Amino acid sequence: MLIVQKYGGSSVGTPERIKKVAERIARYRSEGHQIVVVVSAMRGVTDNLLDMAKTLAPLPNEREMDVLLATGEQTTIALTAMALHSLQVPAVSLTGAQAGIITDEVHTKARIQDITPQQIHAHLDQGNVVIVAGFQGQTLHGHITTLGRGGSDLTAIALASALGADLCQINTDVDGVYTADPRIVPNARKLGEIAYDEMLELAGAGAKVMQSRSVEFAKNYGVVFAVCSSLNDKPGTIVKGETKSMEDVVIRGVTLDKNQAKVTLVAVPDRPGVAGRIFKAMEQAAINVDMIVQNISHGADTPATDLSFTIDKADLPKANEVIGRLRDEMQYQEVIADENIGKLSIVGVGMRSHSGVAAKLFETLSSEGINIMMISTSEIKISVVIDLEKGEKATQAVHRTFLEEGRTLLSEPEIAETR
Amino acid sequence: MLIVQKYGGSSVGTPERIKKVAERIARYRSEGHQIVVVVSAMRGVTDNLLDMAKTLAPLPNEREMDVLLATGEQTTIALTAMALHSLQVPAVSLTGAQAGIITDEVHTKARIQDITPQQIHAHLDQGNVVIVAGFQGQTLHGHITTLGRGGSDLTAIALASALGADLCQINTDVDGVYTADPRIVPNARKLGEIAYDEMLELAGAGAKVMQSRSVEFAKNYGVVFAVCSSLNDKPGTIVKGETKSMEDVVIRGVTLDKNQAKVTLVAVPDRPGVAGRIFKAMEQAAINVDMIVQNISHGADTPATDLSFTIDKADLPKANEVIGRLRDEMQYQEVIADENIGKLSIVGVGMRSHSGVAAKLFETLSSEGINIMMISTSEIKISVVIDLEKGEKATQAVHRTFLEEGRTLLSEPEIAETR
Repeated sequence: MLIVQKYGGSSVGTPERIKKVAERIARYRSEGHQIVVVVSAMRGVTDNLLDMAKTLAPLPNEREMDVLLATGEQTTIALTAMALHSLQVPAVSLTGAQAGIITDEVHTKARIQDITPQQIHAHLDQGNVVIVAGFQGQTLHGHITTLGRGGSDLTAIALASALGADLCQINTDVDGVYTADPRIVPNARKLGEIAYDEMLELAGAGAKVMQSRSVEFAKNYGVVFAVCSSLNDKPGTIVKGETKSMEDVVIRGVTLDKNQAKVTLVAVPDRPGVAGRIFKAMEQAAINVDMIVQNISHGADTPATDLSFTIDKADLPKANEVIGRLRDEMQYQEVIADENIGKLSIVGVGMRSHSGVAAKLFETLSSEGINIMMISTSEIKISVVIDLEKGEKATQAVHRTFLEEGRTLLSEPEIAETR
Repeated sequence: MLIVQKYGGSSVGTPERIKKVAERIARYRSEGHQIVVVVSAMRGVTDNLLDMAKTLAPLPNEREMDVLLATGEQTTIALTAMALHSLQVPAVSLTGAQAGIITDEVHTKARIQDITPQQIHAHLDQGNVVIVAGFQGQTLHGHITTLGRGGSDLTAIALASALGADLCQINTDVDGVYTADPRIVPNARKLGEIAYDEMLELAGAGAKVMQSRSVEFAKNYGVVFAVCSSLNDKPGTIVKGETKSMEDVVIRGVTLDKNQAKVTLVAVPDRPGVAGRIFKAMEQAAINVDMIVQNISHGADTPATDLSFTIDKADLPKANEVIGRLRDEMQYQEVIADENIGKLSIVGVGMRSHSGVAAKLFETLSSEGINIMMISTSEIKISVVIDLEKGEKATQAVHRTFLEEGRTLLSEPEIAETR
């Protein structure tokens, strides 16, 4: 088998941890597999580099930022190769450029355009473990680029695709994707498998296992990958295309996002273009708006409506400024901002074929005395905004309803058997 | 003018120092020059990387060592470019590979084989200061290499040659080459100019301004360069080919090397091949032998001789081991090792045309009551081994004789005028 393994910044955070990672790689190799390893910068290294850059320039040039940051992963590949050598495992390190990862010219958030993996194949054929620097590539003109947040995951998945790997492991500090955050729901179970779309909705709903773009890339290129722990050899959670059997499961997981704030513009005159105006201003201010709810108008002479939306808590001051500037133009009555909210979401491709999921969710919350402030739905996700204080209690209750009682979701061993 | 400037690890040791270096570069550029800058790793960075490598492998693989160490200079080039940007100076950084520095395949001590400076020219033509990572290059197969000790100086001089630069500045923490170490001889004067061969002999004699290989490279390719300080704008010392006027000066400088030890094999049977045998063994143990003195044999039946040589103090334990192993074969009577020696040398191309230099040196030492233990001469250098304790007193006396009294050497302002 050709296996691509990715190890993140905390897995390779110290020379001692790199040793552990090397032992894990050696174990896989001793089973006769060909291994390509993708590593991130050691935890803390990137921040140090950023700090130095900021003492020299408030807004450092992005081309040079990429030259600077790329050293982080380059350090890790060399150290990982050395650690493998001391276990008598032949290994060769490659920078993103050397590994043939070609990107566009958008520094600090480049997109992979092509991979020419001849070097990797050549080193694999010679019996080497090949260690590739994640997060980086080069343009066709030879400039060093970096891929932005989640870039190392992307490198691993793109390489798995280009190499036609049999398995791609995204090693993290959790051992898979869970039905809920185990810190909130002690009964949460690790999932045996999950569909790309479910993974994407979970990420959007605040479950930060992986950045969405890597999952999107995997979906577009059909790369099956496993989210697993670098600390054990459990199979983790397989992320793959939707299969018929996945629809038997109504919902795959429940998440709670505590990092959002709700903004309501009260009594906005209901004229065409009003909503467009405000969200365009938000976009220009680089504020990411998540849920948007607008109700029907009330009032006969000058119809007005309440417009609510959620944003990242950190963006609230900026949003208040934007809204203040629009006051004369928009003629809303007042603004109510609420930071004490939680966004609870349930996700599952099974929703499509099972009716009554929303009703069951609302019932569950109601029976716990939890008020719903906003609702938003997609084909495979339902999100509700509730009081932050009741967020954990609500998550536990919803998990019980959908993921424990009556075993709506197949238990993990059963999933493992059906794989 | 096209100027190549090299800044070493202490000149760029902190972000604050990088700022100072950027200001200096900006000043030169504001005079209308094109500037190519070569930088080393920030002081301490290379040692940190080496420490990490050693925790992972006692003898780290040299290819991977190069991948690791090359990150040091890559960090500096990016930060230096950023510092220039914040002064509104357009600048682009290039790794050794990007700058077109092609080396052989000998990792950790590669030799430059070719430079294809198209990228540098292109960026210069666009008005940029070009910042090149010193100490590194790549093989024709795209492997990262490093050049070994003094590698950044070599990068600068090789680039100056390939680019046909008008001036090459090696910026250090001293402001030029002195007639003697000013810490020993307060009257020491900075030299206006010095010949390559004199510079080489000074380096060999323990004046560690630059590694010999960079000076040799400059000599072979006729690259005129200046040794100057990154802290001021003084012209420094020009290192160039020998000129007729240089011979007017009897000696250029005096040095004292306190880091050598003297080893004497007493009563070695005087058979052919004996000296060859011992120095071959030294070479195999990577011990660098400097001075060698063998006197005529004494004894009629079994002629024997005393063989003395000097080595780095640090190599003494290793040398004793080598000599011990050869005892049966060599049949020397005993070994005397002496760490309390100093090697005093005087250097100057003028020696060739001035007679009596050696006599004057010996007279000077004798009049100070200093005993000479070993003597070794080259065409432009005389070295003597003396008691370590008397080394500084001897250096001062010799400096007075040759470089102060009677103004045997032109004073610096006069040299500056004749340039």
